[in-house]
Amino acid sequence: VTHDSQAVGGIDIGGTKIAVAIGDHDDRLLDVARFPTRIERGPHAILDETLETLSALARRANVRIASVGIGCAGPLDRGRGLVLSPPNLPGWDELPIVDLVERRLDVPVVFDNDANAAALGEHRQGAGRGLHSLVYMTMSTGIGGGVIVVDKLVHGVADAAGEIGHMVVQPNGPACNCGARGCLEAICSGTAIARRARERIGAGAESSMGAIAGGVEAITAATVARAALDGDPVARHLWDETIEYLALGIGNVLVTLAPEAIIIGGGVAAAGDQLFEPLRARVRQNVTMLPPDRVTISPAALGGDSGLYGALALGRSVLAEPR
Amino acid sequence: VTHDSQAVGGIDIGGTKIAVAIGDHDDRLLDVARFPTRIERGPHAILDETLETLSALARRANVRIASVGIGCAGPLDRGRGLVLSPPNLPGWDELPIVDLVERRLDVPVVFDNDANAAALGEHRQGAGRGLHSLVYMTMSTGIGGGVIVVDKLVHGVADAAGEIGHMVVQPNGPACNCGARGCLEAICSGTAIARRARERIGAGAESSMGAIAGGVEAITAATVARAALDGDPVARHLWDETIEYLALGIGNVLVTLAPEAIIIGGGVAAAGDQLFEPLRARVRQNVTMLPPDRVTISPAALGGDSGLYGALALGRSVLAEPR
Repeated sequence: VTHDSQAVGGIDIGGTKIAVAIGDHDDRLLDVARFPTRIERGPHAILDETLETLSALARRANVRIASVGIGCAGPLDRGRGLVLSPPNLPGWDELPIVDLVERRLDVPVVFDNDANAAALGEHRQGAGRGLHSLVYMTMSTGIGGGVIVVDKLVHGVADAAGEIGHMVVQPNGPACNCGARGCLEAICSGTAIARRARERIGAGAESSMGAIAGGVEAITAATVARAALDGDPVARHLWDETIEYLALGIGNVLVTLAPEAIIIGGGVAAAGDQLFEPLRARVRQNVTMLPPDRVTISPAALGGDSGLYGALALGRSVLAEPR
Repeated sequence: VTHDSQAVGGIDIGGTKIAVAIGDHDDRLLDVARFPTRIERGPHAILDETLETLSALARRANVRIASVGIGCAGPLDRGRGLVLSPPNLPGWDELPIVDLVERRLDVPVVFDNDANAAALGEHRQGAGRGLHSLVYMTMSTGIGGGVIVVDKLVHGVADAAGEIGHMVVQPNGPACNCGARGCLEAICSGTAIARRARERIGAGAESSMGAIAGGVEAITAATVARAALDGDPVARHLWDETIEYLALGIGNVLVTLAPEAIIIGGGVAAAGDQLFEPLRARVRQNVTMLPPDRVTISPAALGGDSGLYGALALGRSVLAEPR
């Protein structure tokens, strides 16, 4: 057996895919592997494949895993190391993931929810590199977020900090899964954008979106973005409205925390300039309390890997400071 | 000359009154004095009286002032130690207050805006004592705020953190002094509550508020609160609406930061249970992302002295750590 060097493991667990990586202590990614979650086989089989994959990466790189960071769809109980009842991970209720992984690998494990991990990843190695404060938000099925102040994640009571998808931006607006009305998530998540499009068409609006998507039920946020670019009036109105409410939500974050950057990930951010240019302009009009050139609003630089880089950062954190 | 012990000076500068205090290193208040600002005499005469009062307190207590903290109506440029152009302190534009006081007293001076100072005061010695995170808000002429995370004030870029009065809670709502529409301040500040009452009466609503105040133009937020308690339907509606929007704003802060406490100071908070009981209930209904019993929503414990205690804490901070 050769004397191998230490490395950190990172695991990003989502409802559709899992990414596993090993990295060194200097923020370098040594190797990465991805596979579909296949949620139906249950958490233990999924964890088996995850940890076997991690071990295989370590063997191939001839390193020893010294700690592991995990980013996982929430809600979680970080204190007790439990996955609670994530809508995206049915069957994972109260799963003691930290204990399970610590026992299998005999190394310290740190975990956090996927949005916090992504915020950390973007802060350490993405669009927020070198900044001391930022708010990350992911716009996909829902809207999640992570807040970094003075270089550290803010968790808040019950780990609820960063739940900016549940800011109310339209009083008495559409019902949100959380039970409230008019939450940012209920209007601007990818799911909500698509739902609003289907509702308008269902109410009789004439639009090319159904044809673009191959059926009204197949409309996604990307359909709306594309049809808006093509000049479809219904889609343009939906897109403008999305930017309007998103700008309100981001404005509310800016006047509360005045972070150096707002970084947006998730599928909706893939619209690129079509999203970011009008969004920046609208935020600038709304928020006069801070100079607009002092806050950047930009897409995540690590794309779908923000959370994986964050998981590696979580793993490194436990080596840097005693738990 | 006897060998006197060291003390800290605290100065709270507002548009109508100034409070000056000396304290020891252990958060104890040794003496305090107050006098009217009399803004018309100009900043230099005002600073003269302020510093003479501080020196008189120190002589009387037989202590030597080793540092001074100043809380002052904003906007400020903390980095350059300047008071900018506060609406409440006309004639103080670009006043280099830190330099002026440092030269006169030959001790280090730390300053911050009044809302941040009040947040710090409540954190160290008021309703937030022993907590690690809180958001303070003051509801008076405007709505200001201060954010404390991990025991420290968050300033943010351009010192704009804590400007929660400029969260938009009613899209396309009433115009705010900041240039935007529907800001919390434009609906829920004392000034805005009174303005909304006068507008309703001006539009023909029948109400006892004019009689209570001795004229429609004399109506204040306190008039609205009192008339609402007495059962005046217009006042009750105004009060309920105020609580509705305030709850939205506080809910938005909770899902962003999940602080341990929301602490409310300023004249409107004097309404006590009439404000806090329905406010807590409404926030609880709106915010499902964190357990309601984990966040307290309570009045400032130091009343009008939150900022003065905060100024003393600012003064102490410079002694504790090298600048």
